Amino acid sequence: MTKQRLKIIPLGGLSEIGKNMMVMEYEDDIIVIDVGLMFPEEDMLGIDLVIPDISYLLERREKIRGIVITHGHEDHIGALPYLLPQLNVPVYSTKLTQGLISVKLKERRALAGAELKVIPPGGEFTLGKFKIEFFPVCHSIPDAVGLIIHTPVGIVVHSGDFKLDYTPASGNPTDLSRLAQLGAEGVLLLLSDSTYAELPGYTPSERLVGESLARIMAEAPGRVIIATFSSLISRVQQIIDAAAKYQRRVFIAGRSMNDTVRMALELGYLETPDDILGRLDEMRGMPSNKVVLITTGSQGEPTSALVRIANRDHRQVHIQHGDTVIISATPIPGNESVVNRTVDSLFKQGAQVLYSKVAQVHVHGHGSQEELKLLLNLIKPKFFVPIHGEYRHLSLHAKLAQSVGIPAENIFVLEDSDVLELNPQAGKITGKVSAGNVYVDGLSVGDIGPVVLRNRRMLSRDGIVVAIVAVNRQTGKLVGRPDIVSRGFVDTREANDMIEESRDLVAKVLDHSGDRPAEWSFVSTKLRDTLNRFYYERTKRRPMVLPVIVKV
Amino acid sequence: MTKQRLKIIPLGGLSEIGKNMMVMEYEDDIIVIDVGLMFPEEDMLGIDLVIPDISYLLERREKIRGIVITHGHEDHIGALPYLLPQLNVPVYSTKLTQGLISVKLKERRALAGAELKVIPPGGEFTLGKFKIEFFPVCHSIPDAVGLIIHTPVGIVVHSGDFKLDYTPASGNPTDLSRLAQLGAEGVLLLLSDSTYAELPGYTPSERLVGESLARIMAEAPGRVIIATFSSLISRVQQIIDAAAKYQRRVFIAGRSMNDTVRMALELGYLETPDDILGRLDEMRGMPSNKVVLITTGSQGEPTSALVRIANRDHRQVHIQHGDTVIISATPIPGNESVVNRTVDSLFKQGAQVLYSKVAQVHVHGHGSQEELKLLLNLIKPKFFVPIHGEYRHLSLHAKLAQSVGIPAENIFVLEDSDVLELNPQAGKITGKVSAGNVYVDGLSVGDIGPVVLRNRRMLSRDGIVVAIVAVNRQTGKLVGRPDIVSRGFVDTREANDMIEESRDLVAKVLDHSGDRPAEWSFVSTKLRDTLNRFYYERTKRRPMVLPVIVKV
Repeated sequence: MTKQRLKIIPLGGLSEIGKNMMVMEYEDDIIVIDVGLMFPEEDMLGIDLVIPDISYLLERREKIRGIVITHGHEDHIGALPYLLPQLNVPVYSTKLTQGLISVKLKERRALAGAELKVIPPGGEFTLGKFKIEFFPVCHSIPDAVGLIIHTPVGIVVHSGDFKLDYTPASGNPTDLSRLAQLGAEGVLLLLSDSTYAELPGYTPSERLVGESLARIMAEAPGRVIIATFSSLISRVQQIIDAAAKYQRRVFIAGRSMNDTVRMALELGYLETPDDILGRLDEMRGMPSNKVVLITTGSQGEPTSALVRIANRDHRQVHIQHGDTVIISATPIPGNESVVNRTVDSLFKQGAQVLYSKVAQVHVHGHGSQEELKLLLNLIKPKFFVPIHGEYRHLSLHAKLAQSVGIPAENIFVLEDSDVLELNPQAGKITGKVSAGNVYVDGLSVGDIGPVVLRNRRMLSRDGIVVAIVAVNRQTGKLVGRPDIVSRGFVDTREANDMIEESRDLVAKVLDHSGDRPAEWSFVSTKLRDTLNRFYYERTKRRPMVLPVIVKV
Repeated sequence: MTKQRLKIIPLGGLSEIGKNMMVMEYEDDIIVIDVGLMFPEEDMLGIDLVIPDISYLLERREKIRGIVITHGHEDHIGALPYLLPQLNVPVYSTKLTQGLISVKLKERRALAGAELKVIPPGGEFTLGKFKIEFFPVCHSIPDAVGLIIHTPVGIVVHSGDFKLDYTPASGNPTDLSRLAQLGAEGVLLLLSDSTYAELPGYTPSERLVGESLARIMAEAPGRVIIATFSSLISRVQQIIDAAAKYQRRVFIAGRSMNDTVRMALELGYLETPDDILGRLDEMRGMPSNKVVLITTGSQGEPTSALVRIANRDHRQVHIQHGDTVIISATPIPGNESVVNRTVDSLFKQGAQVLYSKVAQVHVHGHGSQEELKLLLNLIKPKFFVPIHGEYRHLSLHAKLAQSVGIPAENIFVLEDSDVLELNPQAGKITGKVSAGNVYVDGLSVGDIGPVVLRNRRMLSRDGIVVAIVAVNRQTGKLVGRPDIVSRGFVDTREANDMIEESRDLVAKVLDHSGDRPAEWSFVSTKLRDTLNRFYYERTKRRPMVLPVIVKV
């Protein structure tokens, strides 16, 4: 057995492991799989985005041979505008994925100098000692691929995000025969999508959604308004096909939906009968049962077309009697309540609303338990690493792998920044690289740390009280009466007496502190403690207390 | 047709209508059904609880004949400690519900003077012109009832929270024959639970959960740790029964679980074989496959026993190899991520975790679509008002009612504080009473208004900057250098240059403002605008800017 080992390191990921970025390393060669972003968790107040900490990669920049992207969703490409300029290596992806990456990079002015290489599904390329082959998989975006990576230690299969749909709405089904062939040759390691490892059975086919949409368009008495993810181009195709069947014209509302449809038409990922697409201002004149409107807003995004419509805030579209609204998506965790509020508003305005809980208007893009087992069975890997899921999903996927015969000691449930080392005989988690998450807030990347976040949490709960005292620089004596300003703590009109009382309290603390101007920090601490105690006793709240001593 | 009409008014409810409080009024008589609390929505930062605004009731206090409580869950009894002292009328409920109400009132020192009357399921009592009969319903707490209310206008049936379980774990099934008999006599109005109006089919029986629990206890190699709602006493009974069957002893962790179990034993709602309950400190010595531990924490509450165990922070219980943890509950909307984090931590420590997504370890307490239709069919009301649900649930329930033959014009989907007036022939929404929600934060009830909440939201996103300038009271000239203090905005070490620059900017604004001390509010506004613009340009963030001018 040689000393050379293959290293696998998931980087980034708030709770989902290996989804946003995976590092694969062998001797002097590193490849990076996916460079995605994360959406902030609920206690990360004010944070816009979270991206992986790549200090491990920056220390080994000369070893990095390239970035390989499995598909064009935000959580797999969204950190490229921030990180590609730092890494400055070629990016390999399929054509549609490249189109989406270009849009992202352009938005953040990071396109210049980016080396974007298009590889077709089924195509191969070599990065250092890694020979990589794209295999087509079905997912909720076209042109998604998994990876077959030939390494000096053995073959590694990375599933990407996938499901097995034998009748997908567009594109090819997952290439099972290629995978079966690999399984027969012998695969060292499978890394496989765990997102839906909790779900028994099979994920239903996109075809069911197509049939539902067609039935709804046939029966709806008026307009059909459908919100979906703009990247779910196959769903847009299904909507257009159903509209064509029932002689409805199709209109688009929402910037990102417009942009993506245009791009998909140009690149040939969307096919439309002549003249079916209309300009939004032409919609008014149409008989309502001849109209289909595709919009953004399936996640309740506050500025999206659907939410504006629901809030009677859209310039061109207003809900009218007989409208049928379809939310062709499920809420991403965290978005449930805004989506629910949108649905409620649409109902209140008299629309008929169909959403995934009450009608078959969406199927998700990940394999359920039987599909996961099928993949494990076909590939028969020696080692298995569940990826793309929170810890419980990975644990359940690990159990599925055991149930189809992979020994427990060959299964590795990794956490963020764990280093798994493999040789053909054995694998071991040998340590952790330094890693974490980098917060993006406004223009800044990485300057928000735990102190700022802790302060925001504290401010959000009980507000702030600023106590301002002017003191004579020489004598240390109070000048004038202390002032108290509060925000987010109490209704200042109603709590006026308490605030006045606390001003007196501040004056008293100053009086008793003697005149030793050298120890202002001591006075400041005493002020803070006194006010903290006073306000807590009176209100059972703990505002942030900020003493300001002005020396004059 | 007489002028006398029955009024129905839902009060309180953030998004769920009629759940927390319903007012029924006829001439000079008012009854109040349920007095529950709401949990704050995610943008109500720092708020502990929300209770209904009862100004409508306070203006008519002398008309109120009593409060009728359907069951002992927080969202039906939780506002009593705040509102009962103001209303000061008798409260009617079943025995267990009364026990739970007493505990609540005692906690907030509101028990003295409260007149709590116990009525058994099936019992009757009269409040003014209303004759009220309790009928037993199945729900996720024992002793839940619906109401049959004989009014001068006709019979009103209020379902309470209910499902139809023909084999409940404890208590009686919903009394369908009484309801069928009423249906034959003629019912004016049905108010019915809409919580699960989205779900097709029937809600499974509690018996399935009992069977699952027994199977798990038979097969688990080590300890079985089960978290559930403490009020779900029938589930606790099922756990004890299964434990007895497999010779396991039962231990309890968590204050509210201990309290409720003790109370339920005393009142006879829980039956245990001798000696099955042990003290937590006896658990250590037991063989692990002879142990069942019942805990609080099924909603991921930070200080609950299960969350402490998951965080390795519980004094007496630590996860050990072979433990099976069951979450016998589903997360209440909003709690999903904390529950998920708890499950992830338990998996990481090597426990096997079973929860409702992956095993039949919980059924909820509300009827699904077929049950709702059955109730409508039996009762055959002239008028129908869907209650206990968000607007989409009510809309879907209204559609179900139409599908079983109730004319659309006899169905009223109400919003909070709508007044529905009914006579035997017709019904109409005639207006809205003044109402809203009252926030409870710490000791205060009702002093938190929209300004405080808006400030907390603003503070939570980008923090605060306090700009302090000392000026000469007479000349209006700046004294010393302006100071800037920020919290939750930027990491002050890294952003030091920007903060320094903004101090200079403040000085410049002061210099240019001339010396007209009368117009300090003008200077203050100018300071705020200047800093807002400066920080936004530099950071694309909008901290709250608070100028403080100290006149010396």
